[in-house]
Amino acid sequence: NLKPAARGLATAKAPSSLFASLDTFPDRHIGPDDRDVTHMLSALGYESMDAFVADTVPSKIRVSSATVSNETIPSLSESELYLRARALSQANKPFKSYIGMGYHNAVVPPVVLRNVMESPAWYTPYTPYQPEISQGRLESLVNFQTMIMSLTSMDIANASLLDEATAAAESMVMAYTNSNHKKHTFFADNGVSPQTIAVLQTRARGFGIKLVVGDALTDLKDEALRADLCGVLVQYPDVNGSIKDFGSLTESVHAAGALLVCATDLLAVTLLKPPGEWGADIVLGNSARFGVAAGYGGPHAAFFSCTDKLKRKMPGRLIGKSRDIQGKPAYRLALQTREQHIRREKATSNICTSQALLANMAAMYAVYHGPAGLLRIAQKVHALTQIIKSAVEKYGYKAISAEFFDTLTLDVSAAAKDAEAVHAAAQAAGVNLRRIDSKHVGLTLDESVGVEDVVTLVNVFASAASASPITVADLAIVASPAVPQTLQRTSKFLPHPVFNTHHSETEMLRYIYHLQSKDLGLEHAMIPLGSCTMKLNSTSSMIPLTWPEFASVHPFAPTDQVKGYLELIKELEEDLCKITGFHACSLQPNSGAAGEYSGLSIIRAYHESRGEGHRDICLIPVSAHGTNPASAVMAGLKVIPIKTLHDGNLDLVDLKAKAEKYKDNLAAFMITYPSTFGVFEDGVQDACKIIHDNGGQVYLDGANLNAQVGLTNPATCGGDVCHLNLHKTFAIPHGGGGPGVGPICATEHLAPFLPSHPIVPTGGDKGITAVSAAPYGSASILLISWSYIKMLGGNGLTYASKIALLNANYMAHRLSGHYNLRFKNGKGRVAHELLIDLAEFEKSVGLKVNDFAKRLQDYGFHPPTCSWPISTCMLIEPTESESLEEVDRFCDAMIQIRKEAEDIIAGKQPKDNNVLKNAPHPMSVIALSEEEWNRPYSRQTAAYPVPSLHEKKVLADRQFLASMMPTATYTSL
Amino acid sequence: NLKPAARGLATAKAPSSLFASLDTFPDRHIGPDDRDVTHMLSALGYESMDAFVADTVPSKIRVSSATVSNETIPSLSESELYLRARALSQANKPFKSYIGMGYHNAVVPPVVLRNVMESPAWYTPYTPYQPEISQGRLESLVNFQTMIMSLTSMDIANASLLDEATAAAESMVMAYTNSNHKKHTFFADNGVSPQTIAVLQTRARGFGIKLVVGDALTDLKDEALRADLCGVLVQYPDVNGSIKDFGSLTESVHAAGALLVCATDLLAVTLLKPPGEWGADIVLGNSARFGVAAGYGGPHAAFFSCTDKLKRKMPGRLIGKSRDIQGKPAYRLALQTREQHIRREKATSNICTSQALLANMAAMYAVYHGPAGLLRIAQKVHALTQIIKSAVEKYGYKAISAEFFDTLTLDVSAAAKDAEAVHAAAQAAGVNLRRIDSKHVGLTLDESVGVEDVVTLVNVFASAASASPITVADLAIVASPAVPQTLQRTSKFLPHPVFNTHHSETEMLRYIYHLQSKDLGLEHAMIPLGSCTMKLNSTSSMIPLTWPEFASVHPFAPTDQVKGYLELIKELEEDLCKITGFHACSLQPNSGAAGEYSGLSIIRAYHESRGEGHRDICLIPVSAHGTNPASAVMAGLKVIPIKTLHDGNLDLVDLKAKAEKYKDNLAAFMITYPSTFGVFEDGVQDACKIIHDNGGQVYLDGANLNAQVGLTNPATCGGDVCHLNLHKTFAIPHGGGGPGVGPICATEHLAPFLPSHPIVPTGGDKGITAVSAAPYGSASILLISWSYIKMLGGNGLTYASKIALLNANYMAHRLSGHYNLRFKNGKGRVAHELLIDLAEFEKSVGLKVNDFAKRLQDYGFHPPTCSWPISTCMLIEPTESESLEEVDRFCDAMIQIRKEAEDIIAGKQPKDNNVLKNAPHPMSVIALSEEEWNRPYSRQTAAYPVPSLHEKKVLADRQFLASMMPTATYTSL
Ligand SMILES: Cc1ncc(COP(=O)(O)O)c(C=O)c1O
Ligand SMILES: Cc1ncc(COP(=O)(O)O)c(C=O)c1O
Ligand SMILES: O=C([O-])O
Repeated sequence: NLKPAARGLATAKAPSSLFASLDTFPDRHIGPDDRDVTHMLSALGYESMDAFVADTVPSKIRVSSATVSNETIPSLSESELYLRARALSQANKPFKSYIGMGYHNAVVPPVVLRNVMESPAWYTPYTPYQPEISQGRLESLVNFQTMIMSLTSMDIANASLLDEATAAAESMVMAYTNSNHKKHTFFADNGVSPQTIAVLQTRARGFGIKLVVGDALTDLKDEALRADLCGVLVQYPDVNGSIKDFGSLTESVHAAGALLVCATDLLAVTLLKPPGEWGADIVLGNSARFGVAAGYGGPHAAFFSCTDKLKRKMPGRLIGKSRDIQGKPAYRLALQTREQHIRREKATSNICTSQALLANMAAMYAVYHGPAGLLRIAQKVHALTQIIKSAVEKYGYKAISAEFFDTLTLDVSAAAKDAEAVHAAAQAAGVNLRRIDSKHVGLTLDESVGVEDVVTLVNVFASAASASPITVADLAIVASPAVPQTLQRTSKFLPHPVFNTHHSETEMLRYIYHLQSKDLGLEHAMIPLGSCTMKLNSTSSMIPLTWPEFASVHPFAPTDQVKGYLELIKELEEDLCKITGFHACSLQPNSGAAGEYSGLSIIRAYHESRGEGHRDICLIPVSAHGTNPASAVMAGLKVIPIKTLHDGNLDLVDLKAKAEKYKDNLAAFMITYPSTFGVFEDGVQDACKIIHDNGGQVYLDGANLNAQVGLTNPATCGGDVCHLNLHKTFAIPHGGGGPGVGPICATEHLAPFLPSHPIVPTGGDKGITAVSAAPYGSASILLISWSYIKMLGGNGLTYASKIALLNANYMAHRLSGHYNLRFKNGKGRVAHELLIDLAEFEKSVGLKVNDFAKRLQDYGFHPPTCSWPISTCMLIEPTESESLEEVDRFCDAMIQIRKEAEDIIAGKQPKDNNVLKNAPHPMSVIALSEEEWNRPYSRQTAAYPVPSLHEKKVLADRQFLASMMPTATYTSL
Repeated sequence: NLKPAARGLATAKAPSSLFASLDTFPDRHIGPDDRDVTHMLSALGYESMDAFVADTVPSKIRVSSATVSNETIPSLSESELYLRARALSQANKPFKSYIGMGYHNAVVPPVVLRNVMESPAWYTPYTPYQPEISQGRLESLVNFQTMIMSLTSMDIANASLLDEATAAAESMVMAYTNSNHKKHTFFADNGVSPQTIAVLQTRARGFGIKLVVGDALTDLKDEALRADLCGVLVQYPDVNGSIKDFGSLTESVHAAGALLVCATDLLAVTLLKPPGEWGADIVLGNSARFGVAAGYGGPHAAFFSCTDKLKRKMPGRLIGKSRDIQGKPAYRLALQTREQHIRREKATSNICTSQALLANMAAMYAVYHGPAGLLRIAQKVHALTQIIKSAVEKYGYKAISAEFFDTLTLDVSAAAKDAEAVHAAAQAAGVNLRRIDSKHVGLTLDESVGVEDVVTLVNVFASAASASPITVADLAIVASPAVPQTLQRTSKFLPHPVFNTHHSETEMLRYIYHLQSKDLGLEHAMIPLGSCTMKLNSTSSMIPLTWPEFASVHPFAPTDQVKGYLELIKELEEDLCKITGFHACSLQPNSGAAGEYSGLSIIRAYHESRGEGHRDICLIPVSAHGTNPASAVMAGLKVIPIKTLHDGNLDLVDLKAKAEKYKDNLAAFMITYPSTFGVFEDGVQDACKIIHDNGGQVYLDGANLNAQVGLTNPATCGGDVCHLNLHKTFAIPHGGGGPGVGPICATEHLAPFLPSHPIVPTGGDKGITAVSAAPYGSASILLISWSYIKMLGGNGLTYASKIALLNANYMAHRLSGHYNLRFKNGKGRVAHELLIDLAEFEKSVGLKVNDFAKRLQDYGFHPPTCSWPISTCMLIEPTESESLEEVDRFCDAMIQIRKEAEDIIAGKQPKDNNVLKNAPHPMSVIALSEEEWNRPYSRQTAAYPVPSLHEKKVLADRQFLASMMPTATYTSL
């Protein structure tokens, strides 16, 4: 309905806002409109937003409204953003990179690009903790695992890790753990990529592992070294392209009781004897060359596989095959991935968000190409590399190895003046080669390389050798492969039907849609997962991502070719500093947990720089997310838990006591704010002061930053460093379990320690070694958060946080008569999420959190976070993106389920055969015969508990696994 | 499974095909692989493809295998195509156009762009003839109709027409029909766009309508003219931007017993009194400025609305609201749109494919913006136009009208040397203005125009007037609107909930997905609609379409700015000529039916040029598609039907008799080849010779060209001109009912008559006047067919046709023991589709074609074409894109349904309550209570007739309308 004033405008004076853009983002991003806001405020008894916020966020931590405003962060409309992004994209120079070192030019199958990478059905869902509504993603991740197992010839593989370098670091820790922490030496071959070595160095420090880098084939004879050896990492083919036979090395490493870890390449092992066949214990690498763009460093899915013997020690998520209650095959997350929450500081790793979307893309790539297609690609890449080698050798260049797959390292001395002369010729031809030293250059081929590219490359070398250019006709085919006979793969790979069926675009598209039809993402309904901030990721912020000018950039490309990237990185860092109140930012960490680990490592470096390297105590509230203690351990800290009070607040007395008790060794305190109990505690600044007074530093876990933006900030709260989950607050889609970005922001005194990088200078001047393989981590998706911030502008960002608070409080208000709201502040307010306790139902009739969750699926909703941070609770977070209508629909469903539970309590349905226990009720169940049905409620009640579902039934035929799931303490988050 | 030879390649000599690209398109586009092909051939008893084709396509019409080959049409890989398209895109110059004349720079909401325009769920489905699996699109088209009715204030609106100019032509014919063909004068105001006038001229000729162009406000007093007047067309605002009050004109036109037709602008009427409120009988226009890119002319959805009184005469498809058997609201196509097939030459129009996808986009745009949003946009556009006017008037430019919305026509005499001086300044500033004459220039603003653009524009005029440039600060707001008081809109528009709900991106995305979840497109299953060629549209061919360099081009932009477009147009025309064997091509017609009309008009022009303008007889087989007779009538021809024989072949005796009988007046013969009965007839060349011998020309309906490519061609068959449905054979997606492109190719003697265009020179040197508004019709989607042809290459194109034939013949073979295959050739072969006759089932137990169709939905399939071209038949066309697996799945379903019918025949299920009659069985039916269920078969049988559906059930909860549909003779195609 038009307001008359609006309708009359044509006759009135044109508004002075006439020049403002109309496609403004806040209106589109924020669900509730002005009328809805008024409605919610008045339901809560407020006359103004200010009054509401004043009751919700403690006044002592409020920041000035100018801190995050359109003055400090001007807003761009959607079309202005498009033009700005386009201009930045054109500031990147479209050189073609042959730098290699683990990064390739991928050929993304268009059908996968558009229908997975660019599809909200794939990029918006959460980690598949609810198997009934996640079978599609689960199946695809199983395809990924199967592909890795088959290509590497290992017993088991996980569903991705953050990048190759951190996967290597995980393997090192696994080797160390495997020695029961008795053997401290980990050896890395010098054929391992430098960025991997750098990340190993960082990780070794926290665990007190001695990292030795050398020639694995010669240096491992030393007996002292062997006695302390827990593992050896080799790369196959190595960073210089050489293929070495590590078979007897493996035997010798095993003889020393250590593990042999192999970093490898998925395309290479289609031709090379896979590491599993010559005895490797762990095999890892980057899967990106299977159809995932370089993206200036990421995101990419690392893979990780190991022997059966080691499987219980494997980091990351693992999808298992099971059966549903009707006996049909079904998938679920293996429980061990939840172990951080259970084992806390004894967890094997801090991995939480990983790289699900990219793993799915790589798996889809293999599904589309199949084994024969992959082999064709590998053979071509290999053959073209051979052709180049034989061509440039004619000019006097000399390959350092006769055995290679796709990478050549060439000694230029006999042909050109020096390496620089070759690089100069390359620049002139618009291509990048690998810079090694003054005598050597490197080049790596990939699927994207065609015959014209080969000619260009050969002519680069010709030119530097002052030879005349060649043409295609001059290229000679090389007959025999450069893979040693003994290392040629003879075993089959990917024989599974899924990799041998969907090879036409039609079949592939249907397979993608078939899988997605089983899943529930934000494109269907609210996903009110507490602590996960499942807000919609706007199309306008997703569009630039897949432009070739951003997608095709190598992370080690010369900086003058990436001016567009560097500009947006600088702007994003600055904006994040404004938002957090901190001084400097590092975008390197690839997840929240990686951010935690990086932040704590910086704190350690800071203490060390002041001669206080002995400080190693980290205080962590019991309510903290499981990644916190796991990260602390990785940073070499000892975890001391801090109690919480009955009202949910941190026990400041306990904190003070512990801080004083450990004051000589106190390194850090980790605090999540607002707390994981969904309340802004009053005492946060007091808590921080206690820590500072006792020589410690405060790490603020910024997972809940969505409640803070523009209202308070981590610096004001008293923190020294924090991570942000860009995949929560800053609208990077969760991708079904990643990608994520976990940048850290820090105060001035910690800023010098921000992580460096071995190839591209980043971080502070006393920066710790790298925490990720790529200088700016998952650089390409930074575009999303950059766009989000630029389009909301300062005012929009602040308003978004207010609405996030309002939506949660309105929900708390509506549910409070029906459910037990566990915590609220003195004014009766929650923060951006709310915790309801269902313990009473278990006590009275045995109904568990999970029963409520499954029944919510019948209503078309994704359940909230279940049984975390308290086992009998649900943690509910609506975010600012959900409209009042959807929030009300959800509350109606919850209230109706409460009534259904009431019937069970009243004995109208038996305890063990009722509409909650039997939920969910998909088509396959509704279609049961009358005998099989045998339930004290009708099919109508089961399938259409509220009339609106007749119109909008999302979950009509999802898989049905309710009774398959083992009862776990932590089933969600 | 890998062939050992393939696996061994690394050790063998590198293949000589080493340099070939690996991402080749034929492998991805064509469903069956080599093994499948061997299987199918051997099932049919053939040892080679050649032997099979020899039995299928008559040898006398076969063309040399070099005709369409990689020699004549070289193939590009998917990534080569990408680069080529990118290069062409860069050959277009990114000028911003303010040319107007019905074309604007649209701001496409990103959420709609990506999730409708770029989504296979929206672009692949067919016209919604099966309501149970089309409720999503139907609802969206109803939104379109509702939006048009509300904005124009008319009683009824259709679901789109091809473009504004042809919509105007339809209105003229409607006015003529409304006068019972008694009044022959149609008057067009000279404020109507020139391209509309041109199309009216063409259309007037066929009907013998006298088109008079003049000043409607002054020239309509003439009594003689009034006496013969059937209708008047005015444009509001007119092409020069002026807003005139046509209220009293309307009264006077009505007094003369004629209709008042108004071409209008959807954005303007948010501010202007809508034509329905001042008495217009028909209102039409282009909806593209509602979020559809200019695309160098299209595709765009024209709208068409009229008074209730005229509704039975309205052309195009109309969606109606109805109720399903459970009483819930549901939508369906109103039957009248099928009238061509029933009324044949008495049909009111030949419209078949229209612009569904673009209508959906425009509707989604309105859903997203809502009335308040649209008003804001209109007010801004209007206000900025006022600002420009007042700014340039300071330099002495003079607007010809004080009353305007977004368009100014400026007299430059007092300010600049001449119009050319202004255009020169515009070119220098990178913008296009409208060229009118040496004294006037025009400019039109739109939603995309921001304040910087306004400054640029004002400075163009400043520069031509030798004034110094201004800045933003110099812009003065103009207080009062330039819309006359009496013509300001006061009525509300779009009050309906759907336009006032989905205003956040989250809500919008969910609405889009909610609708698509009800529909079945190619992303889910085969759509074996005979005569429709539902092959998959590849992502690689869809990607370039939405690049701004192609999407943002105005159709009347100077040719030196559209070199990329012109190059691809030239290439596409050449390739289509190679494929058809013809001499020249016109890409102007926007659909197959428009192609028919254009081709026949050319034939008429040819006869006229030889002094044989009296030739007006058109022979058409009774089996022809309903558009054929309708098009013939539009071209001014009299239709004489030709019989078909019992074996389905054309009755050559009847043809000869009629041709000779009418030889003095014989104009044309229309033939579809292979025939709509799905067989390559032997006698096609004989038939054509008969026509030529009797002075006629042969029009070949190329809807079935997919069976011909590289094997035969329309020229060899004996045709003189043909149309091609690029949305069939050349893989433009069907869009749920359009867009389409219906180019015509013609022999050398007809080529000079190919259609011209009033603004951009096209066609032959004796070209007929325009048949579409834009010079190259729906230019942007030509990219899809261009990509398809370039990527398949000649060999791939030919192979695709062979596989299309093979798939159909294999299907015929599998079904033939179970169903009555109606027609085949002497060797037992069908063409690319097959016709099965279900008459026996109706006879024995009353089971109709529709019952089989609905039951197929339970099996997860889209039904084939039903009851056309024979009422008791199904016409089935698998296309080359369907894999053997899918073809077999479909055959299995058909065979199983045959068994189910058998049970009914055997009396195991009653005639009126059985699994076919009650089909389909969605969740809402399966969930019925036991009493309501009351059926002689189980829910399992209903929902899961074959076990594979447990895994893959597409149609779990689609709407259920089986018994709602009126029984129609023609329910599909
Ligand atoms: C409070 C809290 N801290 C840390 C994390 C870990 O972040 P990530 O999953 O990005 O590693 C989460 C993730 O849910 C969280 O909720
Ligand atoms: C044989 C035949 N001719 C003509 C047409 C009309 O083509 P269009 O729908 O593009 O107007 C069709 C459409 O199905 C057809 O099958
Ligand atoms: O849409 C058709 O009627 O072919």
